[in-house]
Amino acid sequence: MPSLEFWYDFASPYAWMAAERIDACTQAAGIEVLWRPFVIGPILRQRPDNPSPFQNATPAQRAYRRREVERLCAKYGLPLRWPGSYPRNGLLAARLARAATADLRPALSRALYRANFVDDREISDATVVGEVVAAHGFDAEALLAAALTEQNKRGLMADVDEAMARGIFGAPSFLIGNELFWGNDRLELAVEWAQRPWM
Amino acid sequence: MPSLEFWYDFASPYAWMAAERIDACTQAAGIEVLWRPFVIGPILRQRPDNPSPFQNATPAQRAYRRREVERLCAKYGLPLRWPGSYPRNGLLAARLARAATADLRPALSRALYRANFVDDREISDATVVGEVVAAHGFDAEALLAAALTEQNKRGLMADVDEAMARGIFGAPSFLIGNELFWGNDRLELAVEWAQRPWM
Repeated sequence: MPSLEFWYDFASPYAWMAAERIDACTQAAGIEVLWRPFVIGPILRQRPDNPSPFQNATPAQRAYRRREVERLCAKYGLPLRWPGSYPRNGLLAARLARAATADLRPALSRALYRANFVDDREISDATVVGEVVAAHGFDAEALLAAALTEQNKRGLMADVDEAMARGIFGAPSFLIGNELFWGNDRLELAVEWAQRPWM
Repeated sequence: MPSLEFWYDFASPYAWMAAERIDACTQAAGIEVLWRPFVIGPILRQRPDNPSPFQNATPAQRAYRRREVERLCAKYGLPLRWPGSYPRNGLLAARLARAATADLRPALSRALYRANFVDDREISDATVVGEVVAAHGFDAEALLAAALTEQNKRGLMADVDEAMARGIFGAPSFLIGNELFWGNDRLELAVEWAQRPWM
């Protein structure tokens, strides 16, 4: 079965959209998805001018981005509520998602995204995150303990290094082998490529 | 009939892709297209950090962008040949497209794009441009004369001011009234919005 890596950061509303859409897009195509949580911050900070999506934008770009996210969420039927703090630090959520077993990771990740983008919860706070995952039926205590081991923390930073080494510079990103697709809007193309590369 | 404004710059391969695709996308939907040639340079230069798509990018972004353009052109069946000089200055081409009558503008614009992105011609050179448009059956002498009037030059700068005032910050862009869509990858959404806004 062809497989596709989905690299996602919990601060990004576009990564959230992809997380919500990816099952439908890939299951019909018979593609296996490897969920790869990471944080994009350390990669953005290595750019010479740090053009984070959240910084250095003109007022026109900021206004557009806000409208675009709202317009896309409306189209996808996602009940966006802008986080009171935006962008939220996604490090703890990424550690948690990484610590989860692969079978639980998609549902856990969507629960964390919705806590941030629908319920406006502070997902960088361990108490809040514990409540969120418990409310979704996960073992909060065990997950948080696993998330906060040195091994998992170091593993996540190694994943960030891997992302950078493989050419990732934004989130969400999709990799089919070494073929990189960047952005929620490239999900369908990535799936098509995973089925049959066209060049 | 609903209408959609297509704002395009001749330096951008994504604007070229949109110029090649827009007829098929809009005719089926019964949308009228207003072709609005402009130049994005003066708008990019007003950004505090001038993050032109051609500058300030990391090696990873540059490599991705190049691969992405090639991948999309292959998908669309466009015989891209990277211009020997890239990005080419699109000012003269924009002046020419603006001077053309609306019925000739799409074909003229595609001829100029293909000169740049398929035949690697220097479209900032009036002699070259004259040859290109003549080869496509246009009246080169009359078009160049009209393009280079003070009225047309000033009109194009007024169009750039209009673009900026209406929130445009990149190319290609699509406007349905004041609803802005940015990027070749948003063409289908813009057409859908022109038919029926979903929020």
